[in-house]
Formats: sequence, structure tokens, C-alpha cells
Amino acid sequence: MRDFSRDHRWLSINTATVRKSRGEDLPLPRILEACVERGIRAVSPWRDQVQAAGITNIAKMVREHGLQLSGYCRGGMFPAADAAGLQAARDDNRRAVDEAAQLGAECLVLVVGGLPGALQGKAAHKDIALARSQVRDGIGELLEYARTAKMPLAIEPLHPMYAADRACINTMEQALDVCDELDPYKSGSLGVAVDVYHVWWDPKLEQQIRRAGRNRLLAFHVCDWLTPTADLLNDRGMMGDGVIDIPRIRGWMEAQGFAGYSEVEIFSTGNWWKRPHGEVLDTCIARHRSMV
Amino acid sequence: MRDFSRDHRWLSINTATVRKSRGEDLPLPRILEACVERGIRAVSPWRDQVQAAGITNIAKMVREHGLQLSGYCRGGMFPAADAAGLQAARDDNRRAVDEAAQLGAECLVLVVGGLPGALQGKAAHKDIALARSQVRDGIGELLEYARTAKMPLAIEPLHPMYAADRACINTMEQALDVCDELDPYKSGSLGVAVDVYHVWWDPKLEQQIRRAGRNRLLAFHVCDWLTPTADLLNDRGMMGDGVIDIPRIRGWMEAQGFAGYSEVEIFSTGNWWKRPHGEVLDTCIARHRSMV
Repeated sequence: MRDFSRDHRWLSINTATVRKSRGEDLPLPRILEACVERGIRAVSPWRDQVQAAGITNIAKMVREHGLQLSGYCRGGMFPAADAAGLQAARDDNRRAVDEAAQLGAECLVLVVGGLPGALQGKAAHKDIALARSQVRDGIGELLEYARTAKMPLAIEPLHPMYAADRACINTMEQALDVCDELDPYKSGSLGVAVDVYHVWWDPKLEQQIRRAGRNRLLAFHVCDWLTPTADLLNDRGMMGDGVIDIPRIRGWMEAQGFAGYSEVEIFSTGNWWKRPHGEVLDTCIARHRSMV
Repeated sequence: MRDFSRDHRWLSINTATVRKSRGEDLPLPRILEACVERGIRAVSPWRDQVQAAGITNIAKMVREHGLQLSGYCRGGMFPAADAAGLQAARDDNRRAVDEAAQLGAECLVLVVGGLPGALQGKAAHKDIALARSQVRDGIGELLEYARTAKMPLAIEPLHPMYAADRACINTMEQALDVCDELDPYKSGSLGVAVDVYHVWWDPKLEQQIRRAGRNRLLAFHVCDWLTPTADLLNDRGMMGDGVIDIPRIRGWMEAQGFAGYSEVEIFSTGNWWKRPHGEVLDTCIARHRSMV
């Protein structure tokens, strides 16, 4: 297992972590600059942040600073209530692949979607099996496109508390079943993003990381699970402030040959997004060295 | 599958559902009376409510009204940080078995516990595998005692969002693995309480209900998953107000021969606990007939 205690060369910052600074929106160029200033070598930006700053501008910054992209957030949201919705998702996902390729990302992260309409508060139906089947079909179709663009797709199993509205793929086992069906030869074009927040509780986690193997382990995201957790979405903890044994999980990843970045992804309305982003990044660096 | 549309003979009320009426605590005797008035034949009371009213008093009421207890809430909370804590949990669980037997409950529901201290906001450690091993040992020991008292133990897999602080058994598969280990012959003395709120998202739910079979399916709890869910603990929905396809899950239960009560268990600080308990019970009856 790699020793993270002496530097932060394997730290990546998911840019949502400093999406806000002192409660105010922080533009992506300023986030990138703040990372570069601290010797952070990798980031994972969100599409809306890239769009707001202009992708040509961001691609140029990334290139000039020699930044790596441990991922690009995010494609997915495949299920829809009608054919037009499915088509719109298909088109949007192809654009996400193109953007990820333009930025040189290591993978496109897929948050696959749940029951159509649920995120807006009104699910169109209750058939989660149907949603899952649309997800499988959507990934299958996107995979052909992504292979041409040489952009690996990383399915992110989301915590079961998001099954209704954000992602109906909720365990590693389920994600890997999809991978095995759509990419049986483990080509590297389809795999998983392992976010400790979503999967730490899973009694089969070690077993399924082993099953995934190196070619399916495309990304590793870290933060922490707080007790109590005040909000289902935006109360993630800084590594070390919660109950997740992150080094143990990283050890399982690395035992399979994973050698990529540890990407910090924290959504935190009540705490970290209220602080100055410099303090947050400095804390990420310190905790990366001591708690990851 | 039984037709629930014409009466509510298979409705049970978990008494937490009307723990409060218009925001005020409602004593258990008044809850029982309100159920009896409406022809509700079964309840599942909580230990603290029973204790507040006196168990002799409650046992007498239950007997005189011919009420059935679809379960007794609850035993469990096995993990502890030291030997004294483990012993205290052991003693308390034996008392819970005794109380359940005195009241004539069909089973004692087990919410098994998580990381010691996490519920109080400060976990003693992060070793969820250790907690799970203490749970298995605790259930194994309690099972011998419960068999003597002829009280079936129903492990309730809790939603993974409670893995840290309330229960580190989080899927049907995991619960049934414990059952198979401790009671390989499916004697009926150990099984599961299937609460749709906790398990609806599980892609292996149908498969695991089939695996459980009749002798392991000891209880069936219903409510609904709201989108959005405002609170991790106390924002459960009334059946029909959320995204869970309850009849489908009940169908899977009944296909295995389950013929017991559908027990309504709703924790709802922001909505149902604010209303008069009569209105809540009437709504439970109506929704039991139309949405369960």
C-alpha cells in the first residue's frame, strides 16, 4: 500500500468540494489555481462548472498547468418517462463523453439516475426494475460511443438512500453485474468509481473490490460519514471526522493494483462550503496524509 | 395474494406511528383503545411505551381486547466497546424476550446496533466487521434463551444509512447469512422482519425473500419512501405517498407463504406526528386497503 503520509502527490480534488468558498460560488478557474498553488496535481471537475467557465478555457488551463483529471463529473441519469427523455439523456451523455475526452479525463463518472421525476419530487412511476433496465440499456449504448472516444465509463454505485432520485445502482455487486454483462472481457472501457461514502457499509465490499480487479477499478473517492448525518445530500464529512475506515478500503483497492488518485469529494452546506476554500484545500491535504 | 381492499383485518399498527398526537406524547393505553375502537386487531408496541404504562397493565389490556402483537420493539443493540457493555446488552435483551413473552408477541424484533457510541455521536472505533461479529455472537447467545421462552427473534435489516449508529445488518442477504449460520434448520426461532422502508431499494430483494422462505419471514412492516426525504430518521411517508411499490413486495412475501399482518411503522416529526392520532389511524386503514 502506498505511503500517503509524506506528500500529497496522489491527492485529487473533486471540484464540488470547493464549489463554494465562505458560502459564495467559486468559479472553476479560481479552484484550479488554488489547487495548483498547493501542488495538487489532479482534479475532477463538474460539467456545470466547466460550462460556466467555458470548456476551451478550462482545457487550456488544465494543459498549461499539467493538471490531471482523475474523472469528469458526470454522465448518467439514463431513465426517463418517455422516448424523448431517453433520447435527450442519450444525446447529453454523448456530449459528456466528448467533453471528458477534450479535457483529457481518465474516466467519465456515471451517476446513473433513478425513477424519472423523483429528483424533482414527483416520480413518474415506482418500477425500479424498469429504471434499472433503462440504465443497463443506456450504458450499453453509451459504451460503444465512449469506446470510439477512448473514454472509460466509471459506474458509481450510489448509497441506497439515493436509489429513488439519483442512482438505482446501489452496490458494487450490482454495478459489477452490469459491467460483466456489457464488457465481459474486462477491456478497461467500463468499470466502477468506488466512493467510500456510498459503499463503506456494504458487508460485501472487500469481496466485490476483489471481484472488480484492476481493470474495473477506475476511480477512488473519499470523504467521511458523520454521526449524526444532518442531511441526506450535503452533510458529508472531511476524512477523519466520521466512521469510515478509509485506509482499510484503500488497502483493498491497492491489493488489486489500483494506483490512481484519492479524490476528495465533499458536499457540505453546513460546514466546509462555509469556510474559505484555501482552508478547505489545506485541510484536504493534511487529512489525505493522515487519514486516507 | 390476499385481498386487502375490503377490510383491514391484516392491518397492524406499530405504536410508534401514533407515538405523538398533535405533537404531544400519546400514552400506550390510549393508543390501544384507539386501535380497538377502529377494529384494528394487532399492534406492535415499543418497550419504552410499555414501561411507561406498566407491563402488567398493558398485558391485561392486550388480553381483554383480544389484541394480537405482530411484534415487540425491540431488542438488539448488541455491539459494545467493552465487556461490561456487552454484558449489559445481553441482560437487557433477555428482559426484552421476557417482556415479549409476557405480552404474547409473535416475535421480538432485533435492531442489532452499529458502532458503539455512534448513536451518541462519538463512535468508539471504526471496525464495522468487529461490530458485525459482536452482533452475530449476541444473537447466537440470545437465541438459546429465546428458544426456551419460545419467542422467535426477527432480525430487522436496517437501511444502510443506519449502518453506523443503529444497525450494521443492512441487507436481507446479510441477515439471512446470520440466520443460516445460527439456525441452519430453519426452525422458525430465528428469521427476519422485512420493512419495505429499509429494503425496497435492494436489487436482490425478491431473490432473498425467496431464499428466506416461510419459516424465516416473521414480520412485514410498511410505510413509504418520500422524495425528497428531509430527515434520515423521522421523515417516513404514509403508504402511497412515496415511491415504494408495496404490493409487489407483499406479493413476494406471500408467494413464500407469509400470511401475517402488514404492520404500519411511520416516524414522522414533520407531518403525521403533528396530526390527531385518530386521523392518522383512519388514514392507515384507508391506505392499507388501497396501497398495501
